[in-house]
Amino acid sequence: MSKRQILLLSSSKVHGYEFLEYASQDINDLLSRNNVSSVLFVPYALSNHDEYVKRVEKPFKQWGYKVVGIHTQEHPVQAVNQAKAIFVGGGNTFRLLKKLYDLDLVKAIRKRVLEDGIPYIGASAGTNVATRSINTTNDMPIVYPPSFDALKLVPFNINPHYLDLDPDSKHKGETREERILQYQEEEDAFTVLGLREGSTLYVEGNSAILKGIHRARLFEKNKDPVEIDVGSDLSYLLKE
Amino acid sequence: MSKRQILLLSSSKVHGYEFLEYASQDINDLLSRNNVSSVLFVPYALSNHDEYVKRVEKPFKQWGYKVVGIHTQEHPVQAVNQAKAIFVGGGNTFRLLKKLYDLDLVKAIRKRVLEDGIPYIGASAGTNVATRSINTTNDMPIVYPPSFDALKLVPFNINPHYLDLDPDSKHKGETREERILQYQEEEDAFTVLGLREGSTLYVEGNSAILKGIHRARLFEKNKDPVEIDVGSDLSYLLKE
Repeated sequence: MSKRQILLLSSSKVHGYEFLEYASQDINDLLSRNNVSSVLFVPYALSNHDEYVKRVEKPFKQWGYKVVGIHTQEHPVQAVNQAKAIFVGGGNTFRLLKKLYDLDLVKAIRKRVLEDGIPYIGASAGTNVATRSINTTNDMPIVYPPSFDALKLVPFNINPHYLDLDPDSKHKGETREERILQYQEEEDAFTVLGLREGSTLYVEGNSAILKGIHRARLFEKNKDPVEIDVGSDLSYLLKE
Repeated sequence: MSKRQILLLSSSKVHGYEFLEYASQDINDLLSRNNVSSVLFVPYALSNHDEYVKRVEKPFKQWGYKVVGIHTQEHPVQAVNQAKAIFVGGGNTFRLLKKLYDLDLVKAIRKRVLEDGIPYIGASAGTNVATRSINTTNDMPIVYPPSFDALKLVPFNINPHYLDLDPDSKHKGETREERILQYQEEEDAFTVLGLREGSTLYVEGNSAILKGIHRARLFEKNKDPVEIDVGSDLSYLLKE
């Protein structure tokens, strides 16, 4: 049985809240339970790494945790191997995943989380890369990663920033639901959990629960999408 | 000098208009000028090809053109080599480009358009694949194409369905402009023409002009984005 402890946020920003504020209780519970004092932060989804670390340091320092940007470390794989907790921030999912492959971090992070059980926290792009594949990111494909396969910390996909149809919109581009259903027309498509901003998935070993402040929407292949309330047990999605 | 004659629509649907209606004059001008009677339609961006042909046949038949779905042809490359005009429809850009590579159609279409001068009409995903690369599509990466390089009928990129910021939105995902600017942070990024729905680019040889009913927004690297009025000469974007 996997030792994983994974907190996947739809987004770091939610309307009406400060950066990471809506998830502060869940983040703190996870880190304090593991006696973590320092968090390895992965800022690769944005181009300005130093600035990103500063933004993340603000709430984490306030909560009592040190933040180390992985880009400041000479040996990133070694930094992962020694990390006591990892936070992967949002930005562009393609850029993030490509960098994880380029630096040989995919296997290293996977091992630390699944085998060694260190806490993994992801937000937006950091949530996308934690899943089976990045096939259901909303981001623009600004760089070409060697694969869309991701960290596979969970055996399904997530669509972060899940967005309902705006009935007043005159825009003719596909709705989010249409895009996810298009994905699931593909033969090898996985289940997709649409996490609305403010929605969070917590996975511990073989148990998964929806947390946060907003409902999620679940897309299982060949089934009608269903609404998932906060507090719902989603452990059955972890079966491979 | 290239013989290309290319009409690139942001979208086939625009609020207040029937399917392809807003561009009917431009489509008819291009096809009749070339004495075209039959159009080879590429429906690969959507999963139901037959249904898609029927949708496209409606306006084209009305205008007096036969529509042949490339998926009904035993030898797609040969169908391209014999086509008098090509229309590539919208849907999912990744799925479309992957299929063009899988069927060895990238070079074939490129040759027919750039060397033989047959008219190419694209809408949405069909516009994306006509450009330098699909790095600035809005679509979900539901399949993994062997490359993001596209048909390169023009030496820059397009963002179809370009969307302005909704000032009332409470959503925290990146705006379209932010996404394009993130793309242009990459070293090898190209110029991006943001085509709003109702915006069309017409390219003939080394001349390019903005057509349609709405303005476009142009993103050149290390410059502020600028608005482009309908009727503007954009030929300078064709210089490689």
